[in-house]
Amino acid sequence: MKAAVSESVRSLAVAAKQAAREISAASVAERNQALEAVAQELEREAGAILEAHAEDLREAQAEVTRGELARVLLERLALSPAKLDSMIAGVRAVAKLPDPIGRVLERTTLDTGLELEKVSCPLGLLAVIFEARPEAVTQISSLAVKSANAVILKPGREVARTAGALVAAMRRALRTHTAIPEALVTGIQERAEVDELLGLDDVVDLVIPRGSYALVRHVQAHTRIPLLGHSEGVCHIYVDGAADFAMALEIIDDAKTDYPAACNAVETVLVCRDIAASFLPALAERMRARGVRLRGSREAIGTLPGTSMELVAEEEWHTEYGDLILAVKVVGGLGEAIEHIARYGSAHTDAIVTEDAEAAKIFLAQVDSAGVFHNASTRFSDGYRYGFGAEVGISTSRLHARGPVGLAGLTTYKYVLRGGGQVARDYQGPAAKAFVHRRHD
Amino acid sequence: MKAAVSESVRSLAVAAKQAAREISAASVAERNQALEAVAQELEREAGAILEAHAEDLREAQAEVTRGELARVLLERLALSPAKLDSMIAGVRAVAKLPDPIGRVLERTTLDTGLELEKVSCPLGLLAVIFEARPEAVTQISSLAVKSANAVILKPGREVARTAGALVAAMRRALRTHTAIPEALVTGIQERAEVDELLGLDDVVDLVIPRGSYALVRHVQAHTRIPLLGHSEGVCHIYVDGAADFAMALEIIDDAKTDYPAACNAVETVLVCRDIAASFLPALAERMRARGVRLRGSREAIGTLPGTSMELVAEEEWHTEYGDLILAVKVVGGLGEAIEHIARYGSAHTDAIVTEDAEAAKIFLAQVDSAGVFHNASTRFSDGYRYGFGAEVGISTSRLHARGPVGLAGLTTYKYVLRGGGQVARDYQGPAAKAFVHRRHD
Repeated sequence: MKAAVSESVRSLAVAAKQAAREISAASVAERNQALEAVAQELEREAGAILEAHAEDLREAQAEVTRGELARVLLERLALSPAKLDSMIAGVRAVAKLPDPIGRVLERTTLDTGLELEKVSCPLGLLAVIFEARPEAVTQISSLAVKSANAVILKPGREVARTAGALVAAMRRALRTHTAIPEALVTGIQERAEVDELLGLDDVVDLVIPRGSYALVRHVQAHTRIPLLGHSEGVCHIYVDGAADFAMALEIIDDAKTDYPAACNAVETVLVCRDIAASFLPALAERMRARGVRLRGSREAIGTLPGTSMELVAEEEWHTEYGDLILAVKVVGGLGEAIEHIARYGSAHTDAIVTEDAEAAKIFLAQVDSAGVFHNASTRFSDGYRYGFGAEVGISTSRLHARGPVGLAGLTTYKYVLRGGGQVARDYQGPAAKAFVHRRHD
Repeated sequence: MKAAVSESVRSLAVAAKQAAREISAASVAERNQALEAVAQELEREAGAILEAHAEDLREAQAEVTRGELARVLLERLALSPAKLDSMIAGVRAVAKLPDPIGRVLERTTLDTGLELEKVSCPLGLLAVIFEARPEAVTQISSLAVKSANAVILKPGREVARTAGALVAAMRRALRTHTAIPEALVTGIQERAEVDELLGLDDVVDLVIPRGSYALVRHVQAHTRIPLLGHSEGVCHIYVDGAADFAMALEIIDDAKTDYPAACNAVETVLVCRDIAASFLPALAERMRARGVRLRGSREAIGTLPGTSMELVAEEEWHTEYGDLILAVKVVGGLGEAIEHIARYGSAHTDAIVTEDAEAAKIFLAQVDSAGVFHNASTRFSDGYRYGFGAEVGISTSRLHARGPVGLAGLTTYKYVLRGGGQVARDYQGPAAKAFVHRRHD
């Protein structure tokens, strides 16, 4: 039985990879038309999709009643007609984005009549494993079609019927209205199939886990396929000795309370010793007013007499609270702040608040995170806010794509060389022709 | 004992990583000065280096005599004074390359006074595992210093003393003449230490194996650290129905015979059926004259009556001969050629020879290799020939860096956001401020 499942996932993946190869010949007009066909089919099938969703929801509610599912998940998996509309609008918005494929990234004349271009091209086959979020199905699929990649989707079991109906509608749109093979968008449902999928490192080019840190860590531990995603967002704000206090309070408030569960929310505030005695009381007051519980270093607690702040244990500096909890540490200055971030941070997003341009410059250069901010909230670390139009996810990897990842993160490049019969041996030895190597920027 | 070794490799790696952090504050002038100091120290220490090398060579010669080492390796590990001079010149050449760090790759105004930059920055800590090539030591180290990365080098045991002397001189140069910590360039010697190093996926950012395919495959199989390199170069040339025969013969000759052991040498020639009867005899004659042995598909053999060509077995189409052997296959046309390359190729470099612009366009678009060439030899697939100045290696990975990899492949990027106290919540909800998202290219 296991072998049969394995064979089936592999053959689905091979068919999807073949579809990826075929779509690489499609023009951007054809890919955009396919997205429009998908949007129209989703509109036509809205009833069937919402019906399938109602079944998912009934089952999930029963599980909540039986205590088998957390109530908070109900909200995440819910698909209202309005939400479906916004998902369909999202598909059309992706169609309007610039084509990420075939962009000439660099051009060099190697010699007369020997022209080298570095051209963006699709990655190939993406595998997306997500939890109970129906919108991820259309979002990732439309980004894949736009970037001429194939995608295999594995939804969480709580949205299995919803995702199945969405994928069926998208495949029908491709089959009926386009020359693009429907295998470009493929769904798989069984939990057992995930591990089979993760083993296909010879077929799948990139795996994107969307969901809890537990999911990301599971995927990381079970595959050799390159992975796009982040497992943690332990973001810091350093309040420098030359900070504008009012600005620092605004930024910390926003970064902590706007959406505490977000990966770009702040977890730790580092305060320069020079200003600790004056700044910490103001911070404590503001956080109290906003319902944020403080946890602190020994010195931070000592600086706030009569505080209810509890002591942060060493290991806790690594913690992503994802809640209205903020850790506070007094540091000697800029160098110690940078040191703390290097040791305990997750290289997601870290900010300095200061009016000292030189301190900002050092912080931005030496803090080695995907986002380094001066006098702005860590919450800006987001594909939409960066102006990418659509976001695949946020990467804290250092290779390939880093930070919020838009369509460009779903591309790679190839070198295209056009000549008139040139051979390499003419460019070596005593009578060698010389390369020109003229860059066109 | 094992634990002690392990601890020592880890602590070396942690020190190197710390050095990487410190060099990220160094200006390009300081990094270039460090390279000049390294070049001068290598000149001063030339005697000691060549002496250490003489010992390596004596031992290697004894091993060859005892039949424990292949004679061909002697040439590869040999370090003449002239070769040392060219290695030193190479260090100075890297100093002259443009700074790969701190380049603003993209700039976007998110809103008035809120400026986003995508800036290139170092990867961190590189681990380079190489075989008996002394020049790799200085080449990789100078690229690392230039790109503000730290590097741990593990040389092959046949050049252990040579590499040790080179690393010692480079470290002395850093220690004595620069503010850059000597731990930036670290050598390890014991074979057991390699596997320890490959386990340090929390410290090492990129591993670069330089050497045989056996080495690359060993590294691939034993680490979770992202890897830059290629294990195979199975390159193809497709001779289209509309090819210029003389050009095709020149290109195939160059691609096969210029340096048969190179990864960018051609292994398989695909010939369009329409011209097989006229082209194959000319190809056979040219290859015979150049001492190249042909192996062919059944149809290729059938098209050449009286040929000594042997039949290629199915699995053999995957083979990198690395020798004066060429596989020849007759294909129905462009589509079948693309199909063959997708199935049997290694996504390294593949070329089409044709006078038909449309056929070339389809080939360049649909063949998904790091290099796709029209009317040029596959041997041009090389960092020096592409104009990169220096090459780390050639990557057939699809993620991060692809094809010949220069200094840019040793960088990643971060997003730098500069504001005046902006918070994210002002940009959402009914009274939201609008983003400007103005790209500056």
